[in-house]
Amino acid sequence: MGSYCYRRYVSRLFQNSGKLNPKAKSERRDHESGFSCNSHKLMLYNDIIAQSHPGGFHILPLGLRSLEKLTRLVDEEMQAIGGLKISMTTLASDSLWKQSGRYTEAGAELFTLKDRHKHEYCLGPTHEELVTKLLASMPIISYKALPIKFYQISRKFRDEMAPKYGLLRGREFEMKDMYTFDRNEETALVTYSTVCQAYDRIFDRIGVKYIKVSGATGIIGGNLSHEYHYLADIGQDSILLCDRCGVRMNKELAVEDGSLPKTCQLPATKCELQEKKGIEVGHTFYLGTKYSSIFKATYKDQDGISAIDYNMGCFGLGMTRILQASLETLSTENSLRWPKLIAPHQIYIIPKKDGPRGDEYLANAEALSDALTQRPHLRGEVVIDDRMSLTIGRRNVDGDRLGYPYIVILGVKALESPAQFEVIDVNRGETTFMSTDQLMTFADSIETI
Amino acid sequence: MGSYCYRRYVSRLFQNSGKLNPKAKSERRDHESGFSCNSHKLMLYNDIIAQSHPGGFHILPLGLRSLEKLTRLVDEEMQAIGGLKISMTTLASDSLWKQSGRYTEAGAELFTLKDRHKHEYCLGPTHEELVTKLLASMPIISYKALPIKFYQISRKFRDEMAPKYGLLRGREFEMKDMYTFDRNEETALVTYSTVCQAYDRIFDRIGVKYIKVSGATGIIGGNLSHEYHYLADIGQDSILLCDRCGVRMNKELAVEDGSLPKTCQLPATKCELQEKKGIEVGHTFYLGTKYSSIFKATYKDQDGISAIDYNMGCFGLGMTRILQASLETLSTENSLRWPKLIAPHQIYIIPKKDGPRGDEYLANAEALSDALTQRPHLRGEVVIDDRMSLTIGRRNVDGDRLGYPYIVILGVKALESPAQFEVIDVNRGETTFMSTDQLMTFADSIETI
Repeated sequence: MGSYCYRRYVSRLFQNSGKLNPKAKSERRDHESGFSCNSHKLMLYNDIIAQSHPGGFHILPLGLRSLEKLTRLVDEEMQAIGGLKISMTTLASDSLWKQSGRYTEAGAELFTLKDRHKHEYCLGPTHEELVTKLLASMPIISYKALPIKFYQISRKFRDEMAPKYGLLRGREFEMKDMYTFDRNEETALVTYSTVCQAYDRIFDRIGVKYIKVSGATGIIGGNLSHEYHYLADIGQDSILLCDRCGVRMNKELAVEDGSLPKTCQLPATKCELQEKKGIEVGHTFYLGTKYSSIFKATYKDQDGISAIDYNMGCFGLGMTRILQASLETLSTENSLRWPKLIAPHQIYIIPKKDGPRGDEYLANAEALSDALTQRPHLRGEVVIDDRMSLTIGRRNVDGDRLGYPYIVILGVKALESPAQFEVIDVNRGETTFMSTDQLMTFADSIETI
Repeated sequence: MGSYCYRRYVSRLFQNSGKLNPKAKSERRDHESGFSCNSHKLMLYNDIIAQSHPGGFHILPLGLRSLEKLTRLVDEEMQAIGGLKISMTTLASDSLWKQSGRYTEAGAELFTLKDRHKHEYCLGPTHEELVTKLLASMPIISYKALPIKFYQISRKFRDEMAPKYGLLRGREFEMKDMYTFDRNEETALVTYSTVCQAYDRIFDRIGVKYIKVSGATGIIGGNLSHEYHYLADIGQDSILLCDRCGVRMNKELAVEDGSLPKTCQLPATKCELQEKKGIEVGHTFYLGTKYSSIFKATYKDQDGISAIDYNMGCFGLGMTRILQASLETLSTENSLRWPKLIAPHQIYIIPKKDGPRGDEYLANAEALSDALTQRPHLRGEVVIDDRMSLTIGRRNVDGDRLGYPYIVILGVKALESPAQFEVIDVNRGETTFMSTDQLMTFADSIETI
């Protein structure tokens, strides 16, 4: 692939050049979308997303680069536990949803349509029916092939009454959904725990602080469930937690169970039970045979004769929701901040502006970009701000506002011998001066996916 | 990533173990799906796809691995020409389609639905309206940022009256669609040609023989169009071609134009004009201002004042169609054959069956797999057939049937010193004996994506 050029220029990236007054622009767009929160405003203003219809957003180039990195991260961890990636149809025959009883339960939140032959379909918000029917329609599988862990990452639909907060509560969203098929409850619970551990690793690697709580099973069913939350004031869920006694639960579940703790569970003079708002970013369910018994999805047991219902689990990650909830948690009022690993690009190079040596600075930036992107892990990760009529300061504001993890400034000293570069760690707000060798060593240490 | 295990076992791959009589199984499935062709039968039988609803197919693990490789190939070539990947919403407001006039033109082929507020949407088969509206709704862009080349790879929908041939003529399919925005006709035609060259490279790298012809513009509009076809008897299109005079056109267009050539265009005693059937796998259109003028999508010209309609092009690749059409073209009656670069896995290792040294053979296969997958380009590319109760011959039949490009047999000589392996090039039907070093050198030469 030596013939491909990995230089990326700001002028060709469809990156908002920031010429409009941010406030005016975000207000205009708030008005269009009706609701807003900080991440939503920042994503609209910085062209990370654009509204298509109420609750429906196009994901623009920078946003999609981040989403694709998150996808690779999730693929890695799902495949590390033996997950087999598939892609199910978007349309699901309504008869399957009627058979499971969820057609009525989901009600108006289910998008439905009729084809030209008047057959009715729904646009699946999750795919328990389809995947269980798929297993049921295959030639019967031996117990030896279990557990099966199918997953997909695909567009899902929910006809929210009042969509708001951009990708957080939209009508179209990307979800990773895994469905597991086991021999019995015992092995299914082992599988459940394996997938939960993979979820822990995913959230650990994203690096945004998360809370794992006992969750409510809702209309998906089953009797064991956990939720992963990012804490944020705009979260829809109320989480009860106490660092002393370790209580971590969704208030909704606690109320349902009649197990609502009013204080910390340990005797103490000072109760530390807190109620916080969380954005649900992942949800795991142990399902048992709820769906397999309905759709007669069975495997062949050790005796070679018995057809036994699969013991199932299902596991969801809100991909677009993780993306925006991370931004909501990390960003400042005016600047995007990304989880480093899934930032759209890692390095932003600003060469000194036009002047007698303007071309030299740009050529230098290009040479630096070439040297960096020779490292396979930095291909596509380096952006040159080639708006050479703007000052360094002006472009630095844009780089900071877009949240590039590292900004490299090529000033006067970059053309001296030995060359020196100003490197800003944007998340930490720290500036370091580095020689070429130091910069390359530092670049080698940047983790990418 | 050193902690991840890259061993893949047949028993965990959801790969059809071939225990059923292929004929009985494919006939049963033919009956379900109503129509069939060789690739469709082979894909169903080998669990590459499974039917969800008429014209809707789940893509199973092996099929999805291939599709994701094709996706990476297309991403590489689109990004090499400056393509910016985005992801547009699936739902498009019906008002946009009414504005463009395509709502009526597409007619019953358009899936439509109403949301809970009775607003009507369609499931886009292509996204000219959405992308042009997107550009129109952004703050006006300078001529300096042009051309813009947006593309996406996503699920599309078409309510085919009579879906058939699996993914070839389905109601849900994956399509890569690119939309370009230029200053004027001159630059738009340069862009058109750039994208066509990228398409040529994509099809060259896939390696299946293709024919590029002048095409019909149909309801998408515009006045310049090319089609990429794979020749196959089940193709829907009639292609006129002559190797002497170079005529290459879709008969439909020739009839429309009144330019239907009846014979080779060169004087000759023997006419070589042929009519062949083609499966359309790619289509390019120069659109001009058809959509930009409707949606008032304009850029700011050099004078800083004039708002001028974008000059557009659109470019489609049928991703799932390329996948199946390749299989249709390359496979034999009973065995899948993949374009090597996008085969689900490259290497299939068969260790000698159980017996006194059965465990040794399996351990050897695992060590070989580990040595191969240490090479980054072979991660996930090596599958061990661990069905140790079956003979080598029996498993070799399965490996051949599934079309793994290379089968490595670990027989008695693999445990001798120096070890020797039997390597089968499945596409060529050639067998070579290799030492460990030779095998590693050979493995290094396998191209993957």
